[in-house]
Amino acid sequence: MSVTSAVLAVDLGGTSMKGAVVDAAGRTVHEEARPTPVGGDLVIEAVGDLLVALRERGESLGLRIVAGSVVSPGTIDDSTGVIGYASNLDWRDVPLGSLMAERAGVPVAIGHDVRAAGLAEQLLGAAGGVDDFVHVAIGTGVAAALFDSGTVLRGATSSPGELGHIPVIADGETCTCGQRGCLEVYMSGAGLARRYQARGGEPRDAEQIVARLGSDPIADAVWAEAVHALALGLATVTQLLDPALVVLGGGLSRAGNTLLDPLRIALDAQLTWRPAPRIALSTLGSDAGRIGASVLAFRSIGLGDVVTRWHREGVLAS
Amino acid sequence: MSVTSAVLAVDLGGTSMKGAVVDAAGRTVHEEARPTPVGGDLVIEAVGDLLVALRERGESLGLRIVAGSVVSPGTIDDSTGVIGYASNLDWRDVPLGSLMAERAGVPVAIGHDVRAAGLAEQLLGAAGGVDDFVHVAIGTGVAAALFDSGTVLRGATSSPGELGHIPVIADGETCTCGQRGCLEVYMSGAGLARRYQARGGEPRDAEQIVARLGSDPIADAVWAEAVHALALGLATVTQLLDPALVVLGGGLSRAGNTLLDPLRIALDAQLTWRPAPRIALSTLGSDAGRIGASVLAFRSIGLGDVVTRWHREGVLAS
Repeated sequence: MSVTSAVLAVDLGGTSMKGAVVDAAGRTVHEEARPTPVGGDLVIEAVGDLLVALRERGESLGLRIVAGSVVSPGTIDDSTGVIGYASNLDWRDVPLGSLMAERAGVPVAIGHDVRAAGLAEQLLGAAGGVDDFVHVAIGTGVAAALFDSGTVLRGATSSPGELGHIPVIADGETCTCGQRGCLEVYMSGAGLARRYQARGGEPRDAEQIVARLGSDPIADAVWAEAVHALALGLATVTQLLDPALVVLGGGLSRAGNTLLDPLRIALDAQLTWRPAPRIALSTLGSDAGRIGASVLAFRSIGLGDVVTRWHREGVLAS
Repeated sequence: MSVTSAVLAVDLGGTSMKGAVVDAAGRTVHEEARPTPVGGDLVIEAVGDLLVALRERGESLGLRIVAGSVVSPGTIDDSTGVIGYASNLDWRDVPLGSLMAERAGVPVAIGHDVRAAGLAEQLLGAAGGVDDFVHVAIGTGVAAALFDSGTVLRGATSSPGELGHIPVIADGETCTCGQRGCLEVYMSGAGLARRYQARGGEPRDAEQIVARLGSDPIADAVWAEAVHALALGLATVTQLLDPALVVLGGGLSRAGNTLLDPLRIALDAQLTWRPAPRIALSTLGSDAGRIGASVLAFRSIGLGDVVTRWHREGVLAS
């Protein structure tokens, strides 16, 4: 195919939507972020507007736009392009694929944001060459994409990978979801901020709490409990799924070795009779979802082969 | 193929090995069980002897033996037929497939006992027609076979499905494996017997403990904790894997509704925001592993199609 072909890629989150035009060589030739409005119909409208703007920009650069993709949180049926439920977006049973294809004038593939990010890490990032791995996104909440034999798990209702809501502390603190002892009660941006304040700390976000480690006993305490909870969750993941690698992404993965070092020790301590999987940081960071979306777009029109070329040529898609 | 063709199927456990000759119509024409000796070399010898005896018996019935299969616990590489590690059998790096082919004079496929049982439930039992399900074997310990989109998960080191060793009670009682709070500390044959006695009960096995429910407060207490632990484990499985169905097999599944009724209530209580998967009892019971082995044997020589016929014709393989 001509290198002047390109796709539209949108990573839709609860607070912002990040769009890009990505050409067939894997280059991000244009990026554009917009806030996500509140209200289901407004979100649909805004995503459509972004796709149209991206398309116009791509065409003005002389590119031929051949497809698009939107990845989002929620219950996503990749095959039909219907979003069953996405609480942050106020969506239920939204046929996003057909709605966006109409707006964008090209086929628009729909995918799950964390599964798309995992796919990007597998093809171009920290999980390159690994068939059995788990991509864990630790942001406001926690979600995972689970890969076995190279394939991402889809589950019976397109809702696997809810790692943030496994009960790591039996009958523990109540989660915003109503369950008790969920992993993300302890290890997540929202969980750390809430627990830090509940122990008498000033209102601070997770990044600020991490920055105070070593000089703030409350920060130290909630962080230690968060790492313990994540280690319990990853011990469970290891016993159930036997991954070779855990890739940590999402905002909290920016803590780097502050997270990795104690986590590795805690996971080794949990697993007495089998080796822990390797743990690595995402190399694509917050671009992973958008890069995954561009891959889905090319694949959806039968051009998945261009992506293998990105990989072979070491193009970092940015 | 001629209906006079047949395979040798062996389900090898730590205490006994159950063998059968299964013809291409799915009929078990001969069954034979033997105790499993102690000591790795003796086990290899004994399995070989059983295969030879099964072969002779099959031939004496006028059957043509075309393949065999042995399924066992442990770290099984189905593709190479090598058993990496099986603690109960005192095996490490045993090339069982080639050793048994030499003894039996036919190709011998090697598989994992719980994955084979799950395959049998999928093709001919409680999980018929379900692509995304979990087969949980609750015996002396607990293990699971995990199916997504119709395919069983294999993991990076052929060791997924260790449901018995996920930490359901953080920092809970120590397991025989050295970890703490493992599911099978609480819900397993060995766990129930040990905890019943630790609370002052007479030495009894799990079946006896279950029989005393309602009239023995110690039995009631350890059973309630066991059901709670299993519900926590299945809540985790649901959040991670999103199965449509959980099939319960193994000796403790014979508790039937005594297990199912409180388990369903406890799992519903754990999962506040998503529906629990259906929970059903194994329909193949202790035959599941052996039936799965016969399926693996036919498949290994390219005759997997005969098994679809068993399914279509409703043959129960016994």
